[in-house]
Amino acid sequence: MRKISILGIGETKMGRLAERSLRDLIQEAGNKAIVDAGIEKKEIDALYVGNFNSSYLCGQGHMGSLASEALELGNIPTVRTEGACASGSLAFRMAVMGIQSGTYDIALVGGVEKMTHRNTATVTTAIASAMDYELEAMQGFTFPASFAMIAHRYFHEYRDVKREMGMCAYNAHQNALLNPDAQMHKDVTLEKILAADLIASPLSLFDCSLVTDGAAFVVLAAADAARGLRAKHRTIELAGSGHAGDTLALASKPVITSFAATKAAAAQAYFQANLKPQDIDFAEVHDCFTITQIINTEDLGFFEKGKGGDAVAEGITALKGKKPINPSGGLKAKGHPIGATGLSQIYEVVTQLRGDAAKRQLAKADIGLAHNLGGTAGTCVINIFRGQ
Amino acid sequence: MRKISILGIGETKMGRLAERSLRDLIQEAGNKAIVDAGIEKKEIDALYVGNFNSSYLCGQGHMGSLASEALELGNIPTVRTEGACASGSLAFRMAVMGIQSGTYDIALVGGVEKMTHRNTATVTTAIASAMDYELEAMQGFTFPASFAMIAHRYFHEYRDVKREMGMCAYNAHQNALLNPDAQMHKDVTLEKILAADLIASPLSLFDCSLVTDGAAFVVLAAADAARGLRAKHRTIELAGSGHAGDTLALASKPVITSFAATKAAAAQAYFQANLKPQDIDFAEVHDCFTITQIINTEDLGFFEKGKGGDAVAEGITALKGKKPINPSGGLKAKGHPIGATGLSQIYEVVTQLRGDAAKRQLAKADIGLAHNLGGTAGTCVINIFRGQ
Repeated sequence: MRKISILGIGETKMGRLAERSLRDLIQEAGNKAIVDAGIEKKEIDALYVGNFNSSYLCGQGHMGSLASEALELGNIPTVRTEGACASGSLAFRMAVMGIQSGTYDIALVGGVEKMTHRNTATVTTAIASAMDYELEAMQGFTFPASFAMIAHRYFHEYRDVKREMGMCAYNAHQNALLNPDAQMHKDVTLEKILAADLIASPLSLFDCSLVTDGAAFVVLAAADAARGLRAKHRTIELAGSGHAGDTLALASKPVITSFAATKAAAAQAYFQANLKPQDIDFAEVHDCFTITQIINTEDLGFFEKGKGGDAVAEGITALKGKKPINPSGGLKAKGHPIGATGLSQIYEVVTQLRGDAAKRQLAKADIGLAHNLGGTAGTCVINIFRGQ
Repeated sequence: MRKISILGIGETKMGRLAERSLRDLIQEAGNKAIVDAGIEKKEIDALYVGNFNSSYLCGQGHMGSLASEALELGNIPTVRTEGACASGSLAFRMAVMGIQSGTYDIALVGGVEKMTHRNTATVTTAIASAMDYELEAMQGFTFPASFAMIAHRYFHEYRDVKREMGMCAYNAHQNALLNPDAQMHKDVTLEKILAADLIASPLSLFDCSLVTDGAAFVVLAAADAARGLRAKHRTIELAGSGHAGDTLALASKPVITSFAATKAAAAQAYFQANLKPQDIDFAEVHDCFTITQIINTEDLGFFEKGKGGDAVAEGITALKGKKPINPSGGLKAKGHPIGATGLSQIYEVVTQLRGDAAKRQLAKADIGLAHNLGGTAGTCVINIFRGQ
């Protein structure tokens, strides 16, 4: 299979961007990635856009065409991909295959979401479309409730990790303080986190990720095609990737304290990269809720089943720990612009691998992993990157 | 590049299916396609689902996961693709690349839409999300209005083809009478068509396609992987395909009586297939409005620019003509279940190539083309199939 290189990255500041349109966000992040790649627009063969639910939130579907027009890319082929919160990584995955099929040499991949202009009820309805409508959303089920049930079951099968969940949030906020693109720049104490109001027991306010506007773009290319291009940065290679699915409804899953989609996608990615979990220097891991991060770090093989909380308590996942998780601040504190999240994770991994992460730069960053989950773990995409 | 074969096809009846859920429609069409292919579910490597706007119309996103659960496909990777009315063909296009990249051998591709349960205003809003929201939809612009402007301009640049547009609708209804899956089984006279109420001048009722519930699925495989499988039908090969885009907003296009996306995608598909427009025996052509069909048949190279209407008048595009267009009844009379439309076009092409089209079987059907357009021609996917 053709090797894939990451040529360029770009993202907007994440947050409540009331004055920015979808078009604005796309133009800023897309043009940054193109400039960063040092390519001309005419060299781009195809555009892939991850977007979760602007059809509902903004009245805007057909996002591939919108983004192509906004970035003045002419008649290149475009597509929007959607798989709930994994929509952005799916765009990346499709682009990789477009290049590996030999159809394209250079692809632009972006993700965008605009959510904060709608009221809470509308946003909740929009997000709930990532569940099973008939069996879940229509009955009043929401994602905090779903992951609260998962957390309760985890407490029952293993142990109560409410304090360690709080430490996940604490680490996220500390890391976000060092990330200028992060939505939250709040020096929150662990005490305040643990004392926060309950949202859906046992999840409290700081266990939940954010509602965010933002966009992130990546330029990728066949390594053979990229060689002719001016090397502006350390070369970043896609070492391995995986993509797996699972049932949509929570009730359809025989086990809910481990995500089959994460495990299957991880197995593919490690096999393709010829790497083991212990070879990964750091990771951006999907933390829609703090319990999700703990479970995913176990399913990724970083920690033993039931021991993800211990690893957090021991400081292993902190910025200066042995296996830093979410140096960007994660969905919890950098923000969760749903369709852009997967690309923003890749943005952080590439930034770290390049050594460009400034105050949050990790001591060792040669191999990084991006893990993106959709819905109640119905979709998972994992990519492992290596600096050359 | 790996050659692609079509192993199986399945679709539901199209229409107002009030008693059917998205899950029902997926199960019926998906299982039909799998049975038709003569494969086991465990042989399916990946699932691609085209859906336009169930997020808005049904509160249901994350359609890849829903479809995988409904069809009991386990942990295979899934993705939803969207590009307005071309969403289904985009799923097919992504699946082709997934196989050509060497990642998968056999893929299931489906499209689904459920629209008739919502009122006209809601459906109009949902469909308008395929336009530019800021510049068009928010200002009250709708698709009938958009294609009415295109028709007026076509009348100005070439000639008034209002009567020939009516003949497109007449042919569509005649063909649909012979298609048991078609939404409309109405023997409408040309006189009645031409006398119908105006919707947006010069488009009248019969110039507009339908609001439809339905699903269509296709099983495709690498030809090398398919060889080991039991051959139930004539082998159908993907001879060539193309995918191109264009600006989203009508006002951004320098020319509106010819679709740049259709022309670019057609050039790719003909080149890949090493075929010319005159080699195509018949085609399913995107006819969201009758004028769209006329323009597309010109852009596909079937007829000279400005002469598409003449071809209709001369009977060339009728079922027994020299270049039959939309033997299925098209979007106009078979129906337009948006996300399923591209796959339903492929369903018809394969059915004709197999010689299984019963009363609407074409005299010559060795090479067929499926043409699917999204929005105001912002996205176009074309596939050419050949019976072996």
